[in-house]
Amino acid sequence: MAAPLSRRDLEFLLYEWLDVEKLTSRERYREHSRETFDAVLELSEDIATKCFAPANKTGDQNEPYVGDDGKVVLPDEISSGINEFLKAGLAAGSFDESLGGMQLPTVVNRASSAWFQAANAAMSSYTFLTVGNANLLAEYGTPEQIDTWVRPMVEGRFFGTMCLSEPQAGSSLADITTKAEPADDGSYRITGTKMWISAGDHELGENIVHLVLAKAPGGGPGVKGISLFIVPKYLADGTRNDVALVGLNHKMGNRATTNTLLNFGDGTFAPADAPGAVGYLVGEEHRGLSYMFHMMNEARIGVGFLATSLGYAGYQASVEYAKVRTQGRPVDQKDPTSKPIPIIEHADVKRMLLAQKSYVEGALALGLYCSKLVDEQTTSTGDEHERAGLLLDVLTPIAKSWPSQWCLEANSLAIQVHGGYGYTKEFDVEQYYRDNRLNPIHEGTHGIHGLDLLGRKVIMRGGAGLALLAETIGATIDRAIGASEATGNVTGASEATGNEATAEYAADLRRAVDLLVTTTGQVWSAEDPAVSLANATAYLEATGHIVLAWLWLDQLLAVGGAQGDFYDGKRAAAQYFFRYELPKTGPQLALLAALDRTTLDAAPAWF
Amino acid sequence: MAAPLSRRDLEFLLYEWLDVEKLTSRERYREHSRETFDAVLELSEDIATKCFAPANKTGDQNEPYVGDDGKVVLPDEISSGINEFLKAGLAAGSFDESLGGMQLPTVVNRASSAWFQAANAAMSSYTFLTVGNANLLAEYGTPEQIDTWVRPMVEGRFFGTMCLSEPQAGSSLADITTKAEPADDGSYRITGTKMWISAGDHELGENIVHLVLAKAPGGGPGVKGISLFIVPKYLADGTRNDVALVGLNHKMGNRATTNTLLNFGDGTFAPADAPGAVGYLVGEEHRGLSYMFHMMNEARIGVGFLATSLGYAGYQASVEYAKVRTQGRPVDQKDPTSKPIPIIEHADVKRMLLAQKSYVEGALALGLYCSKLVDEQTTSTGDEHERAGLLLDVLTPIAKSWPSQWCLEANSLAIQVHGGYGYTKEFDVEQYYRDNRLNPIHEGTHGIHGLDLLGRKVIMRGGAGLALLAETIGATIDRAIGASEATGNVTGASEATGNEATAEYAADLRRAVDLLVTTTGQVWSAEDPAVSLANATAYLEATGHIVLAWLWLDQLLAVGGAQGDFYDGKRAAAQYFFRYELPKTGPQLALLAALDRTTLDAAPAWF
Repeated sequence: MAAPLSRRDLEFLLYEWLDVEKLTSRERYREHSRETFDAVLELSEDIATKCFAPANKTGDQNEPYVGDDGKVVLPDEISSGINEFLKAGLAAGSFDESLGGMQLPTVVNRASSAWFQAANAAMSSYTFLTVGNANLLAEYGTPEQIDTWVRPMVEGRFFGTMCLSEPQAGSSLADITTKAEPADDGSYRITGTKMWISAGDHELGENIVHLVLAKAPGGGPGVKGISLFIVPKYLADGTRNDVALVGLNHKMGNRATTNTLLNFGDGTFAPADAPGAVGYLVGEEHRGLSYMFHMMNEARIGVGFLATSLGYAGYQASVEYAKVRTQGRPVDQKDPTSKPIPIIEHADVKRMLLAQKSYVEGALALGLYCSKLVDEQTTSTGDEHERAGLLLDVLTPIAKSWPSQWCLEANSLAIQVHGGYGYTKEFDVEQYYRDNRLNPIHEGTHGIHGLDLLGRKVIMRGGAGLALLAETIGATIDRAIGASEATGNVTGASEATGNEATAEYAADLRRAVDLLVTTTGQVWSAEDPAVSLANATAYLEATGHIVLAWLWLDQLLAVGGAQGDFYDGKRAAAQYFFRYELPKTGPQLALLAALDRTTLDAAPAWF
Repeated sequence: MAAPLSRRDLEFLLYEWLDVEKLTSRERYREHSRETFDAVLELSEDIATKCFAPANKTGDQNEPYVGDDGKVVLPDEISSGINEFLKAGLAAGSFDESLGGMQLPTVVNRASSAWFQAANAAMSSYTFLTVGNANLLAEYGTPEQIDTWVRPMVEGRFFGTMCLSEPQAGSSLADITTKAEPADDGSYRITGTKMWISAGDHELGENIVHLVLAKAPGGGPGVKGISLFIVPKYLADGTRNDVALVGLNHKMGNRATTNTLLNFGDGTFAPADAPGAVGYLVGEEHRGLSYMFHMMNEARIGVGFLATSLGYAGYQASVEYAKVRTQGRPVDQKDPTSKPIPIIEHADVKRMLLAQKSYVEGALALGLYCSKLVDEQTTSTGDEHERAGLLLDVLTPIAKSWPSQWCLEANSLAIQVHGGYGYTKEFDVEQYYRDNRLNPIHEGTHGIHGLDLLGRKVIMRGGAGLALLAETIGATIDRAIGASEATGNVTGASEATGNEATAEYAADLRRAVDLLVTTTGQVWSAEDPAVSLANATAYLEATGHIVLAWLWLDQLLAVGGAQGDFYDGKRAAAQYFFRYELPKTGPQLALLAALDRTTLDAAPAWF
């Protein structure tokens, strides 16, 4: 079986491209070195391939169910694999040493996580939701809350969730109805129903720490009335809290992650004289959504990594298959007695592999780039802190949505490379495709991120976000043109071709970015936000492609004139992206510039 | 539950657009009338919704298996539903009256079939493969073969398959190794293994008639050595023939259609003194592939209908959901206490519905158009016969591939409209998506159809196929411009807008077709077929979008100035296709014109 990720590509991205070793010059990471990074990555690869990958089909084909005792039953391989992960201390990667963590840079920790996501996406969600939960509480919890809830999560004894959606309110958090009533002891009593809660119930650890959005009295309507609560499955003294599993959702994919409907405070586990689930306020009342965004933004980049990892695993599997499967002959070979060739030699199979490569390696670059921005933001102050945070804000909707769209497409191509075999359960790619279809839906649907990017991120602070993105991309373009001119004078034909290509891509990207900026102005020149936002999804997708083209160009600068198959592969994937993908943004931006009203004007009765 | 197809749309396409009533003036269809067509369509809708649709989830969740007696077990609802279909005589739709058929026009018969494909795609394949098999034998079989094998299929007693692929030879038929040895009695003994045989074994009828490609002695290597044989599961005297079920393939979707690995002549059912499965030659030796293309071309259009029907069912389901599900508020509504609106009022949901509508109604138009060409071809001679056949040849790869790509995308959008619910087995759309993912793979993969279109269809007979397509599209453009000018002078503002739109689309389409023709010349100006064909898939996709734009423009001519929601919906879907979809062909054609070598030049070692 093919490795679900490429160690070589990770090393290129981390060390040759992002130069993450330089992070060790920062105070927070001074105990670290390339050696400690490599040790974590090798350990991750080892446990992921040995303990997570073999459980991937098992988890898919043996969906969790609720046993007679009301407890969730998961295949043994899921819990034993997660135990190996926890025993190795990998849940503690990015946490402060003071909490028992490794204090790894986020970018290295994300690379570590990607191994588990690629090996077994559904299984990985239990641990990474826990990490996100603990990160939020480590930031906003009281010291006591941190001791009680965060430490056991870092130690791998407790698990965590995020509880936002309700059956009647998925994307629309303003409409949640879960209530929080203050109790005499300073805690709250939570009542309501939460839907789509991943890892919402299971027996993998000693406890589950739910982070729950609910409305406390006096907050008023809308999202401003929302507060955030810790609602554990078991209270600190071991008493069962009134959080009841109502049912498991049966899904097309991602089946080993339990997805639950939970009732809070329905009386199942509460004594009659103390109704409601016990909850503890995080931070201040009515500011819950702003805290939750800490976890949501992290989870959004995490979903991007999940989509990327699934795309990557499919890519690796289809490359392996295409190299061994023989079929057909070159189009100019007429002799039917000649030997069939490996399908990787057919142009259309190479197209499907190049497309996948450009999507999955590009998406991994995007995720790691954003993760490094998190490190830059958290270890700096002043201008660097501001800029990293602003760029991260603009990139987050893209880091979530772009991989969810294009790495799913990569999975479809991985099936196609396998032909009929890819459609069967004998191979892995059909599961990757089913698993990945979740990612454009959760943590904000694709459409919601379009509204976030166009309606909020690019216009906030007077358009500073878009300006910073354009400036950052512009710096890469300038370097690319500079590099191409500098070496163009002194090198031979073959490298000159490489330089010409880089200069060509830089020019294409310059045109695209300029057009994006102009188009954004045209879109917002409409007097009516409904008109401006009518094609927000097209805006999201066009911006995403431009960002990915930038990251491919930036990778090429790290490649430079290096020789060998690996670097030639990077050049070919970049060429694919610039020739086949970036041009797709032309019609999208034209549609946006025209303030097209087709969707806006369509009447419900016409359907 | 939403109806899986729209009766109103079918009526529009058949009667208002294609004017199929006119076919009754042809000798072959003179017994028919709109009344008989409508009776068949109503009966089909009735049986499909009552007997096929309720078995759709059952068949998906209770995959066929091989029982202890070696027989395939299917859920009861599958066989009882198929029996209703057969009892109603619907398997006999397009056959000659002399064979006990209804002698319906193909276009009406396909519309009838679409109801069953939309209601239960996997179940429908048993009967439609049988029809294709019987059609081939009715054309090329001897009178005795027709009596023995075709009549029982038309009567609904026997089922049929097509056996082409082998484990080592999927797309590459030149490499099949199944052998046919002549026996003394004029029959043949067949030995070999066939893979991916849909409906290859089951107990739904009295017998299964396999049509098997095999190599008889003396045919030489390659596809020219292939002959075609009837290899029944049971011989005419009831003896079990030596055709053994080796195993069932377990698939992501389309699960209720058994998909089998079959051994011919492995001795399982043969006496020791008579090895091999008994086969009967169809037509002449070594001409088998040309006969099989009769069934393959029919099956390819059938796959297009299958993809279309699944896309349509998802569209209908998501429209129904979007009208009742409330969530969120208009982007310009700031009051959180205002009532949530049905999601169909959000622009991005309307985008997803318009996209689906433009794909599924466009694909249905394409399938019916091609089916009417079959009728025109089979009921004419001379120039009409030639032209209909040539246009059908050019359109067949598109009729198969375009719906397989875009109606699958429609299913993805149908999931997205449902949000998290769409990802669960509680709703139907996730199954449609899984079922539909088969269609870009079987009956010639997507890539194979690109090679067929660019490498064969558009250049055959000195380019006459492409010229005829361009001329036919040009006639629609001329009519559209004529209609717009004629009415532009005499009508009011609102109709003038409609006319302006039509004229705008006609101009866009003219540019696109002209560019397609020019680009085709540029592509073939390369001296090397490997270069010309390197981007055949992009050619297939661009041509497909241009063809669909043409069919949308042509539908608009049938809409004319008609008033009402249905017609406004047609206008909106056409507008969507011209504004959002047709522009995608620009970058594809530019890539082709540049004779881009990115895929061609990529080395296997780079992956």
